[in-house]
Amino acid sequence: MQIPLLDNKMIKCKDTNVVWHKGYVKREERELKYGHKSGVVWFTGLSGSGKSTIAHNVEKILFEKDIKVYVLDGDNIRHGLNVDLGFSVEDRKENIRRIVEVAKLFVDAGIILLAAFISPYRYIRKYVHYQFKNDNFIEIFVKCSLKECERRDPKGHYKKARAGIIKGYTGIDTPFEEPEDSDLIIDTEKLNIHESVEKVIRYLQKERWIE
Amino acid sequence: MQIPLLDNKMIKCKDTNVVWHKGYVKREERELKYGHKSGVVWFTGLSGSGKSTIAHNVEKILFEKDIKVYVLDGDNIRHGLNVDLGFSVEDRKENIRRIVEVAKLFVDAGIILLAAFISPYRYIRKYVHYQFKNDNFIEIFVKCSLKECERRDPKGHYKKARAGIIKGYTGIDTPFEEPEDSDLIIDTEKLNIHESVEKVIRYLQKERWIE
Repeated sequence: MQIPLLDNKMIKCKDTNVVWHKGYVKREERELKYGHKSGVVWFTGLSGSGKSTIAHNVEKILFEKDIKVYVLDGDNIRHGLNVDLGFSVEDRKENIRRIVEVAKLFVDAGIILLAAFISPYRYIRKYVHYQFKNDNFIEIFVKCSLKECERRDPKGHYKKARAGIIKGYTGIDTPFEEPEDSDLIIDTEKLNIHESVEKVIRYLQKERWIE
Repeated sequence: MQIPLLDNKMIKCKDTNVVWHKGYVKREERELKYGHKSGVVWFTGLSGSGKSTIAHNVEKILFEKDIKVYVLDGDNIRHGLNVDLGFSVEDRKENIRRIVEVAKLFVDAGIILLAAFISPYRYIRKYVHYQFKNDNFIEIFVKCSLKECERRDPKGHYKKARAGIIKGYTGIDTPFEEPEDSDLIIDTEKLNIHESVEKVIRYLQKERWIE
């Protein structure tokens, strides 16, 4: 079995003895019962741009609207599933590959999955998009200048990266390739958190994911 | 940061720059809104014992009762998240480690996660149990003799394992260590699928996970 992977490389699936058990509850049945679409909202942007903050605030509002929703973010997933991965190019790829696979499970479970990950490279975002169908994937670019992200520096990482204590930090010594075709741009230097969250919610309504 | 891992080995977390983003929606709030507990029901047993079949049937019935529920099983997870893993001892450990971490996310999302994995070794089941609190973990031993599993052989794997085409197959050339302290035993040589599913549902009610 050939599985398309990151970088357009193909890997050979090691196991040829697996049989797909299709569940009796289909995603469509869950969507019908829950009253909304399931899918992935992928937030990309520099560290400090506001991805996680926006995602968690959107989650809270959707939850209050009785929508099944959950946030995966770069920080909490690295404490668990991807605790074995660092920040090398290979590890970043594997990090994203696993996140995508987990996101697929949540989508299959009928949930709107809010994923907040820097995802700095175009080919990574392309890979992510490719893994989902257009009708259940939205990319949101959380836009904020490096200068402002460094000023905010909520975790003190930029300071450490500038001091050379953290290596390979996105924006400092590895690039962030700005998205050119995101579905939505949230500029957090222009919008406050309330406005940012509202913009996301309105977009989900416009796209008929939610009412 | 030290993380306890399988085999009581400790691994060093490679990344010391992660900060846990606590969401605004707590698991307890989800449980309250959904009207049931979240947790993991872990089905262990030989291939062919009926783990996945029972799990998927339980899922269907719980879903119809408006319970948020999802099945992870050994077959479907190996097509996605764990496609890079084989069946060596190390890969089996990593397989379970990742499944446990995904299960934690589902529990955090307020869902009853039905996990159907052979989990043949005592230390693996002990590890899994240790990763959850007692109040949100149930182990169910789906009991069936090797003889009967081989007779059923739904995927033709036992035949291939006997012929030496599949190596390291549980029950044939790697052991299945029978659980001694499961919360519930479902003997699929004595109970039919309907009775098996009923027994699981009644147990969840008795334990007050569901009404």
